[in-house]
Amino acid sequence: MLLSRRLLSKVSQPFISQLERVLGKEAVKITTGETSENSDNQRRLIGGNPDVVVLPKNVGQVSSLLKICNENSIPVIPFSATTGLDGFLNTFEGGVLIDLMSMDKILEVNTSDFNCTVEPGVTLETLNHNLHATGLWFPGDPGANASICGMAATNATGTNTLRYGTMVQNVLNLEVVLPNGDVLYTAGKGRRPRKSAGYNLTKLFVGSKGTLGVITQAAVRLYARPSVCSVAICPFQTVDKAIQAVVATLQCSVPIAKIEFLDAATVAACNRYSKLTLAESPTLFLEFHGNSEAEVAEQASLVGEIFASNDGREFIWCHAPEEQKKLWVSLHSAYYAVLSQKDNVKGLTIHLSLPTSALAKAVAETRKEIDESGIFGAVVGHIGDGCFHCIFLVDESNQEEMKIIQELADQIIKRVLASGGSCTGEHGIGISKRNYLESECGKVAVNSMIAIKKAFDPKGIMNPNEMFSKN
Amino acid sequence: MLLSRRLLSKVSQPFISQLERVLGKEAVKITTGETSENSDNQRRLIGGNPDVVVLPKNVGQVSSLLKICNENSIPVIPFSATTGLDGFLNTFEGGVLIDLMSMDKILEVNTSDFNCTVEPGVTLETLNHNLHATGLWFPGDPGANASICGMAATNATGTNTLRYGTMVQNVLNLEVVLPNGDVLYTAGKGRRPRKSAGYNLTKLFVGSKGTLGVITQAAVRLYARPSVCSVAICPFQTVDKAIQAVVATLQCSVPIAKIEFLDAATVAACNRYSKLTLAESPTLFLEFHGNSEAEVAEQASLVGEIFASNDGREFIWCHAPEEQKKLWVSLHSAYYAVLSQKDNVKGLTIHLSLPTSALAKAVAETRKEIDESGIFGAVVGHIGDGCFHCIFLVDESNQEEMKIIQELADQIIKRVLASGGSCTGEHGIGISKRNYLESECGKVAVNSMIAIKKAFDPKGIMNPNEMFSKN
Repeated sequence: MLLSRRLLSKVSQPFISQLERVLGKEAVKITTGETSENSDNQRRLIGGNPDVVVLPKNVGQVSSLLKICNENSIPVIPFSATTGLDGFLNTFEGGVLIDLMSMDKILEVNTSDFNCTVEPGVTLETLNHNLHATGLWFPGDPGANASICGMAATNATGTNTLRYGTMVQNVLNLEVVLPNGDVLYTAGKGRRPRKSAGYNLTKLFVGSKGTLGVITQAAVRLYARPSVCSVAICPFQTVDKAIQAVVATLQCSVPIAKIEFLDAATVAACNRYSKLTLAESPTLFLEFHGNSEAEVAEQASLVGEIFASNDGREFIWCHAPEEQKKLWVSLHSAYYAVLSQKDNVKGLTIHLSLPTSALAKAVAETRKEIDESGIFGAVVGHIGDGCFHCIFLVDESNQEEMKIIQELADQIIKRVLASGGSCTGEHGIGISKRNYLESECGKVAVNSMIAIKKAFDPKGIMNPNEMFSKN
Repeated sequence: MLLSRRLLSKVSQPFISQLERVLGKEAVKITTGETSENSDNQRRLIGGNPDVVVLPKNVGQVSSLLKICNENSIPVIPFSATTGLDGFLNTFEGGVLIDLMSMDKILEVNTSDFNCTVEPGVTLETLNHNLHATGLWFPGDPGANASICGMAATNATGTNTLRYGTMVQNVLNLEVVLPNGDVLYTAGKGRRPRKSAGYNLTKLFVGSKGTLGVITQAAVRLYARPSVCSVAICPFQTVDKAIQAVVATLQCSVPIAKIEFLDAATVAACNRYSKLTLAESPTLFLEFHGNSEAEVAEQASLVGEIFASNDGREFIWCHAPEEQKKLWVSLHSAYYAVLSQKDNVKGLTIHLSLPTSALAKAVAETRKEIDESGIFGAVVGHIGDGCFHCIFLVDESNQEEMKIIQELADQIIKRVLASGGSCTGEHGIGISKRNYLESECGKVAVNSMIAIKKAFDPKGIMNPNEMFSKN
């Protein structure tokens, strides 16, 4: 393939030829320069596009191509299902996007030890579909059909985090190709241990977002599918009361599986987009898991009491599995439902997390601040995990409005940081948040992270704009 | 204090004077040269002793003293409650031991968010005693009155790990003094977040055993004390059947709090040492936690069925709280009970962990191998967490026996590694196991760990013999 004129000087024809020799010509695609096939609204809003997209078929090819990029000091960004936010696919320096979706094997399912090993092309839905007959499942559920390895790279959270933990609890081992081409097994090749010796490399790589190496396999924990699963909806009069009910539930240590929050604006958007008929108030959506009807009933009764004492209405139960499924699919489409409220806009989201005790005040204040700004914004969240998102609709041609939204987002993030929260909820730090890293973690922590980055990636080729500010 | 002649050349009188200026003369103790006050049998077996023991009172003093040691390239080993194994207090190069027990404040207990922040001198018993009125507790229970920060440094496991996780799940933030004197907050100063931005420094430092910096504060999760707690004992005919019963219980995902294993030799030793009257067979000790009698009864009934189908005898219930306490104290003294079986011996222990599916075979083979060797050895473990220990009694004057025991230990460790297990169960890798690190994790992982070590500790002063082989 000939090199188009627009490519940055670093990506030369000999470099492309080297890639083609290793991967085959069909697996090396020069991008059009406008936008990569794999970028979407959210991502295009933030940064530039890569020069080349490559599609390796195995770990050997990933190793060879990283070596070539490293020798040529070409920036590299790995990706799989492209469901992440925060502009991780963008690059301000051109470079190579590694599309890992062709590596799509479920390599092993270990039903005795409740774990499995998958390649980056394996998504949540594919994995759980394949696990169905075993009685096991992977409960991670970020609200999109994410890839398991991508969820590891971003330390994704999701609707079931409350009961089953985030990725950092569920990843047992990773195969990672380092910039020099070395293949690292973070907990030893083929192992899926409860403990491992030396530094915890597995948990260092979870959430590192392709800045240290390319994840080419993930071994993750599986769980027994709950035999009983109940779903309920509970509308509240105010945001504050809804979140206070969540806080009280968390403080009672009820082993509930899901507590999701939609504000009134998002419920209204979901009603229109997904043809639901929910009351348009701040609403909590709950799922209870257990091994018996009695166990689930006990949880539900306790939560019902807590909610009632916070002015929650009666639970509306979703009994039929297809009704439950429709509800969760609608909730997972909340971003698109909000986006469909206006024409010619793009979505700008921020995601945040907070300690339980700071949650009610922060969410209520955020909602109030958005209302006062006159900007349309929705607040939704995996609230049981202390995580919430704000979704703003952005008309890029309206510079004045863009400025107001950016200031509003900045204000919301700063208040969350001041309340002991984190500027990241579930997609990692990303290009849009990296300027807050030092406010959150402190200078010594950022210096330590940069020292780790240099130890693994001395030339700084791995997703170079993702984690650290350049200034 | 005058410098004794035996000190290594690196530790000079001017160096001691520098330490004394920062810490005060009374906080700088030259050791006698024979053995440190803080070493015990297990540790003395392996390595040498430090030259100086220092007792800092606050993080500022730790920072100043590390700077002095770093400038003078003097090895440093931090310690607190000295309950760890694997020779972490020994040094082959002399140097400074930092005794952190004077920093003993519980800095904050946050009852809304279920967490607390403690200094290194705070032990498990002190913390739980102080938490009593809050209804919360820290469930970590390694079997000794360990310090919370030390448990973080070693990624300790314990009897309650099965239900409440290891330290890596329970540590939220660490204050760490780096070798250059910088004070790092792994998740941002004062934060105790569910998520944090950037690389997961907290989980990198958990289990790093003082090789990257000195932990001077740990923020850890707390849990609501269970309202119902039942304890049962179940003897089995064979080691194999006992462990198979554990495996089946784990595979049924029963949320049991403790499953501890003692082999017949250890039960016999505990009977004599702690004046118990247990049947001298391989035995499992169980604890069930729940919010109601019904919840605990349901767990116990399920486990009872599983055990019965593995030839377990009827549960012997311990109902009275003082009876329960006596039992766990006796189990926690198992090491000393075994040690008391012979005069003039020292204990040599190895601790290992395994995936559930490999557990029964590995423990049964280990027991058989010890029997065939003619050496006295006990097998005990936090078996619910896949972790077990072998305790050997060593007469240091008997070189032939020492050699047999070392070969036996080597054989057991290698078989565990070959079964997908780890050479470390709960005390980290340590001087006695570091030669297995590469077999377990692979060369690329070890190189990555060494790169991290160099990034934090370029002069290699932090616990220099703990993690990596010198050859």
